[in-house]
Amino acid sequence: MTARKVILDCDPGHDDAISIIIAASRLSDLEILGITTVGGNVEVEKNTINALKVKDLLGLDVPVVQGAERPLVKKSEVATEIHGESGMDGPVLPKPKSKPDAGHAVDFIIDQVLAVKGKVTLVPTGPLTNIALALLKAPKIKHKIEEVVLMGGGTFGNWTPSAEFNIFVDAEAAKVVFESGVPITMFGLDVTHQVIATKEIQQRLSKVDNKVAKFVSELLVFFGDMYEDHFGIEGGPIHDACTTMYLLKPELFDFKHVHVAVETRGEFTYGATAVDLLNVTGRIPNTHFAHQVDQEAFWNLFEAVLESYDEVK
Amino acid sequence: MTARKVILDCDPGHDDAISIIIAASRLSDLEILGITTVGGNVEVEKNTINALKVKDLLGLDVPVVQGAERPLVKKSEVATEIHGESGMDGPVLPKPKSKPDAGHAVDFIIDQVLAVKGKVTLVPTGPLTNIALALLKAPKIKHKIEEVVLMGGGTFGNWTPSAEFNIFVDAEAAKVVFESGVPITMFGLDVTHQVIATKEIQQRLSKVDNKVAKFVSELLVFFGDMYEDHFGIEGGPIHDACTTMYLLKPELFDFKHVHVAVETRGEFTYGATAVDLLNVTGRIPNTHFAHQVDQEAFWNLFEAVLESYDEVK
Amino acid sequence: MTARKVILDCDPGHDDAISIIIAASRLSDLEILGITTVGGNVEVEKNTINALKVKDLLGLDVPVVQGAERPLVKKSEVATEIHGESGMDGPVLPKPKSKPDAGHAVDFIIDQVLAVKGKVTLVPTGPLTNIALALLKAPKIKHKIEEVVLMGGGTFGNWTPSAEFNIFVDAEAAKVVFESGVPITMFGLDVTHQVIATKEIQQRLSKVDNKVAKFVSELLVFFGDMYEDHFGIEGGPIHDACTTMYLLKPELFDFKHVHVAVETRGEFTYGATAVDLLNVTGRIPNTHFAHQVDQEAFWNLFEAVLESYDEVK
Amino acid sequence: MTARKVILDCDPGHDDAISIIIAASRLSDLEILGITTVGGNVEVEKNTINALKVKDLLGLDVPVVQGAERPLVKKSEVATEIHGESGMDGPVLPKPKSKPDAGHAVDFIIDQVLAVKGKVTLVPTGPLTNIALALLKAPKIKHKIEEVVLMGGGTFGNWTPSAEFNIFVDAEAAKVVFESGVPITMFGLDVTHQVIATKEIQQRLSKVDNKVAKFVSELLVFFGDMYEDHFGIEGGPIHDACTTMYLLKPELFDFKHVHVAVETRGEFTYGATAVDLLNVTGRIPNTHFAHQVDQEAFWNLFEAVLESYDEVK
Repeated sequence: MTARKVILDCDPGHDDAISIIIAASRLSDLEILGITTVGGNVEVEKNTINALKVKDLLGLDVPVVQGAERPLVKKSEVATEIHGESGMDGPVLPKPKSKPDAGHAVDFIIDQVLAVKGKVTLVPTGPLTNIALALLKAPKIKHKIEEVVLMGGGTFGNWTPSAEFNIFVDAEAAKVVFESGVPITMFGLDVTHQVIATKEIQQRLSKVDNKVAKFVSELLVFFGDMYEDHFGIEGGPIHDACTTMYLLKPELFDFKHVHVAVETRGEFTYGATAVDLLNVTGRIPNTHFAHQVDQEAFWNLFEAVLESYDEVK
Repeated sequence: MTARKVILDCDPGHDDAISIIIAASRLSDLEILGITTVGGNVEVEKNTINALKVKDLLGLDVPVVQGAERPLVKKSEVATEIHGESGMDGPVLPKPKSKPDAGHAVDFIIDQVLAVKGKVTLVPTGPLTNIALALLKAPKIKHKIEEVVLMGGGTFGNWTPSAEFNIFVDAEAAKVVFESGVPITMFGLDVTHQVIATKEIQQRLSKVDNKVAKFVSELLVFFGDMYEDHFGIEGGPIHDACTTMYLLKPELFDFKHVHVAVETRGEFTYGATAVDLLNVTGRIPNTHFAHQVDQEAFWNLFEAVLESYDEVK
Repeated sequence: MTARKVILDCDPGHDDAISIIIAASRLSDLEILGITTVGGNVEVEKNTINALKVKDLLGLDVPVVQGAERPLVKKSEVATEIHGESGMDGPVLPKPKSKPDAGHAVDFIIDQVLAVKGKVTLVPTGPLTNIALALLKAPKIKHKIEEVVLMGGGTFGNWTPSAEFNIFVDAEAAKVVFESGVPITMFGLDVTHQVIATKEIQQRLSKVDNKVAKFVSELLVFFGDMYEDHFGIEGGPIHDACTTMYLLKPELFDFKHVHVAVETRGEFTYGATAVDLLNVTGRIPNTHFAHQVDQEAFWNLFEAVLESYDEVK
Repeated sequence: MTARKVILDCDPGHDDAISIIIAASRLSDLEILGITTVGGNVEVEKNTINALKVKDLLGLDVPVVQGAERPLVKKSEVATEIHGESGMDGPVLPKPKSKPDAGHAVDFIIDQVLAVKGKVTLVPTGPLTNIALALLKAPKIKHKIEEVVLMGGGTFGNWTPSAEFNIFVDAEAAKVVFESGVPITMFGLDVTHQVIATKEIQQRLSKVDNKVAKFVSELLVFFGDMYEDHFGIEGGPIHDACTTMYLLKPELFDFKHVHVAVETRGEFTYGATAVDLLNVTGRIPNTHFAHQVDQEAFWNLFEAVLESYDEVK
């Protein structure tokens, strides 16, 4: 079986960084076609710098291409409350050695998807702006997308009572993606809140002794403190990591095949994802909705991922 | 301490009937000023007949006054899928001996609230149309309402993926009530789905041997079957009963004081209640939101309520 | 032919006052069942006082009943920019001799409509809150309403770019009325802006020498100045007067039978009336929409109305 | 003075074709950088073919680049009722000699705008999808756009009671453009309905004897018949032509500098443009809104434009 080809579309971001680390680890057989960035947690330029820093840390040889600065229709929104000024506060990494690759993320996605033999899996862990723009500019890519494996949404919210941050930032983009007909696998808050890097987990992982693991540990400490301050939750959920953990080992998660609609008009619910778990709408399912994770297996694999970086020391 | 004065505003409805039975039981020291009906589960006329039947069954001597036929702004919606054609299918009760009292529920509520010494507690277990109309017609009643103790809403939905039935039927009315400034105690799906009359519970309660308990048992069997068919849940949640159980024994429940907003404009989320559990909106709390029930204590008290009807045999 | 029975539901208001004066004149054969007031231009209490003052001025013997303080769903809005602090600034009338009649406008409307033989014509010249509440509380009155002859809406706005004031104040109420199935005759801005009391018209009317005409002249001067300041229009359109002028002489106006929908969800268009003049929606007409007035005939009749008060001097 | 550089972004379309003819005439000193097409009146492929046909007819040597197939967020909508199956029914032109240029309209616009010395004027006469996508993909082009001269919107609608077709097709795109801060000159229905090619006008223009004029005459006859059938208007308004007529001779039109907002959330008013003619919103003007045209001068110039093609015979 050939390696699965993925594009990681992200706004790193603590958990975005972790998601990349998982995808790039020795335990992964994913072929990373590139990393694309999007405005989200902070300005896109900062996200691009963070992506480059992670690339350097991992010694990764993949294109990093910058994408959309702003949402499709709504005004921009940033989340320095959670990720700090740089978008990835906490550990200090050296300035990136390289610049981002030329071109625009949207074109990179379109070109890659059309160029490869077989299909590509898109893994957005930030707002869905780039993915939506690619679908709008080149609708024909639909047929060459194997799956959109995304972190976003849920049956409840974190940025507003009803909306998760990624979807809230650009609900119109999310609407375009969810209505596109492309197969979607969704990791929303329902499942990401089951993988919280508690103090205990932080402790355990801090024992893995290599520079990548050390970096992850520092991320988790900073991210956890932010969550405790802001939401009163002990430890941060490593939301985005679910996407690539799933790609490494799908059976970690349980899914329901349901219809998900994205609210763009609500007065109080902009960016909510209406997940039809009870099948009351009669709409045809468009999403594999992850609702349950095997926590023990998850953290075991995650620890193994970190350990796999030992030789990079 | 004087008895707490309540008006039960309802659309019986299986769980509405149970809610009345609790309020009228010997374990309750509530003073029921009257029962008002509202269009909801089925047409208001049917709800009124059901209320009268329950009144007869209990030998209750209180006014029953019919109210609003239709929602404030939206078109009507009924739920015969859940409650059957009569709105209270299952047990067969004799035709009501009496007619409803003259006048309109909205005026009954206004007049009672203004007439009594002290304050009145309103207990709506159907759509909030009557309560909203009373607040619109006579805003001054606000200051004489002790509390609105309602069943409705939640952080998830049952009628649509985002909306609970009572709020969905008349979200504009709900908006009026939640924005009114009147103290609100809310029993939404989060807590009512913790009091499911499972087969086991049904078994246990069926042993109470009096005519009221027998009626309740038959309700639970029918209601449970409907839930199993429609939602795939074993046994029905006795939603509305939470309101009067709370009035009998508040300490059964745990609450969070939060802001709740009602969505009236969403494309997919009409009738959703945005419950700000994480306090991310900065809006001032307007609702005591029940999030947890002591299930054992709940069913113990419920059983005792049924037993208290032994002498009515 | 028997006199047409009307209820004037208003928020006087300069042009509301004029509308009453027309209805009560000797040239009118309308039977005024009562005047009901509604919150709108200013607080309902002020509107009631203004209605009583006009009643006194005219020596009119009809009930004046106060109605809704606030819109169905939206927060209150007042227009002192246009009508001044009292809601009818300009001419000084003595304090009212009497108090308003007991009861609520909504019940007055319901009771009158149900009590009379034949049908009643409702003439709302303010927000449609009372009319909507009456329809909600007693849907059966529909069949006894001959016509709702209203001032409101239009294909353009004055309070926002898209919405006229009366509809904007309570678009939900307007939606209820327009969707009720009751015959509607609508005088919107398209036609009311054809009856502007210009300086020249003011001059002409000022020659009518009786106390009612003098009062009207003073209203027109004040109202005209307000319009000039606020909208840059020379002279004020006597919007509300169209309704009763139509009842005196329908052939003053040309109508199109069209569908009108009321927008309640728009971000920029709340309260807009979508008037389907080109019949592009395929919706069944619900409104006789006045689009043209014979200006010369209008002012001639209006002058005659004022002259008819000569004997009241 | 150097020639003004323009990109004609269109969905030809009868009046789009005429707009190109005006821009390309000998009376024009515009430098046409290219013609870009967008889905709108009919599918984008048909619009591209029509653009190529017009290019051939005029012997025009400019790139024609195809753009967006579908709106940003909404589902597609086409208007064969007005323009016929081909999107430009009526006159029969030969199949295009050439193919469209490679690439996507959005990139063509971005590249041209960034490449030229000085600024570029964008002239969209279809839905604003391409322009919005260009602004989203490369926000920095804003500073190099001299003006967006567009046909769309108005204070009333033609496709719905509130919305004009171009804006209705992609209101989200229109919102992006109107909120972008780029200078906008808007020709909405208020002014385009002042340039109706009545039977009399058709007669007059039919006397110009060259192949381009003949083509225009045939367009006007077909378009006029469609309007008469569909809207009951005698003769079609040559909406899009206003944009290029303005570029030839700005003083044909009178303007108001006002704020225009685009409705994307309304239930009945999606795609309405809220034109703040009375300046009641206090929002800062973003649009030069054409409200009046000198009809005589317009048709004289238009006739001269057609005559200028005599030598192409």
